[in-house]
Amino acid sequence: MNIVLLDPRQTQSELWTISAKRQLEHLRTHVDVQVGDTLKVGIREGKRYLTEIVSVSELQIQLKPLREEPVPAKLPVTLIVAMPRPKVLRRLIMDAVTLGVEKIILLHSYRVDKSYWQTPFLQQLEHYVDLGLEQAGDTIAPAIELYKRFKPFVEDVMPAMISAACPAYAAHPYAEIKMPAGISHPCTIVIGPEGGFIPYEIDLLIKNGCQAVSLGSRIIRTETVIPVILGRLFSG
Amino acid sequence: MNIVLLDPRQTQSELWTISAKRQLEHLRTHVDVQVGDTLKVGIREGKRYLTEIVSVSELQIQLKPLREEPVPAKLPVTLIVAMPRPKVLRRLIMDAVTLGVEKIILLHSYRVDKSYWQTPFLQQLEHYVDLGLEQAGDTIAPAIELYKRFKPFVEDVMPAMISAACPAYAAHPYAEIKMPAGISHPCTIVIGPEGGFIPYEIDLLIKNGCQAVSLGSRIIRTETVIPVILGRLFSG
Repeated sequence: MNIVLLDPRQTQSELWTISAKRQLEHLRTHVDVQVGDTLKVGIREGKRYLTEIVSVSELQIQLKPLREEPVPAKLPVTLIVAMPRPKVLRRLIMDAVTLGVEKIILLHSYRVDKSYWQTPFLQQLEHYVDLGLEQAGDTIAPAIELYKRFKPFVEDVMPAMISAACPAYAAHPYAEIKMPAGISHPCTIVIGPEGGFIPYEIDLLIKNGCQAVSLGSRIIRTETVIPVILGRLFSG
Repeated sequence: MNIVLLDPRQTQSELWTISAKRQLEHLRTHVDVQVGDTLKVGIREGKRYLTEIVSVSELQIQLKPLREEPVPAKLPVTLIVAMPRPKVLRRLIMDAVTLGVEKIILLHSYRVDKSYWQTPFLQQLEHYVDLGLEQAGDTIAPAIELYKRFKPFVEDVMPAMISAACPAYAAHPYAEIKMPAGISHPCTIVIGPEGGFIPYEIDLLIKNGCQAVSLGSRIIRTETVIPVILGRLFSG
């Protein structure tokens, strides 16, 4: 937790308040906050501030804003990813948010186990988004969309996300073209499930505007390949 | 598991044998192997082969090698990382191995909890190396070294790893120079603990040949920043 994310309602009086149990516990046990300490705070969907701690009690911490601080820029990326196992989903959401992805789309695919769509984690995505934002020092949650049918998404929804100014790269181990690097334009990234997209799916993605690109001969897990790709694409 | 890693002793007769419980279970439950199927196999510290399954029993699977396949190249990187929490350590080792890091050094640092050096995971590193190799389709384990004292390592051991042809980059959020991208030479990467290196440590690293470089204003967790850095550095 590198900033404390507050709801705008907690910042409407002169003194701001932290009252969420998770945040209070973290600040007490890991940071050992004291009156007079400074604390970095972000207002959900708003600005970031350096604040000073004015009071610490069992149920709340009160803060006084000192000065505004910059919110880190987002990466101009839409990440389309085949719905992963629940444990991987958590990490993936946190990491994609930490790294600044603007929009995350979870998509069904032939090799996605249907049970993954029933995980209770899907009801808690907002919590993992918060953890990712607090890690990165960001305040703006990415949009997250779910599509439980592959073909209608790829044929009817995805094409509007792709243009010459915003290409879509589908990571595919057998592609002949390499994933680009050091780009300075927006893009869409498409990541398959464990075991990969089936040939029909790759063909449909390509037919609807994606470029199949390779990352070399090593096979990398979904949750690891996303930071690799983002580090590679936005290295400028 | 994208290849099955075998000990050279399991490949000395005409038919090779898989007898490790973990591998047998994976092949039976996740792959549902049958006689006549092909299977990718790597010989520890050796070559990779496409094989054909000749027999499947409760206690072993027998294979016939069909042809040699290429082992993916390693990244010319030494990764020096402050000893992380045990859970992070596991992921970090698996990911660094999957991504092809040649050498991993676990180092003490002021903000590393001393208890981390007592974790039983340190006795099981070889297991996580195997998982990383089997994920990547690699056969060559990286060297792993442990240094429980920061200063003697940085002053006496590290300088021999650094040269004009092989620079060392210490990731540091407050550095003014950006981490390079798309390099084609070997290098050493230095990653601090949660909370970062203390100023004394960063100074000592710089004094002994490291360049402090920044990855931007987002604060990224150790296990996530390693794939970001590797994706960025080796994007050529």
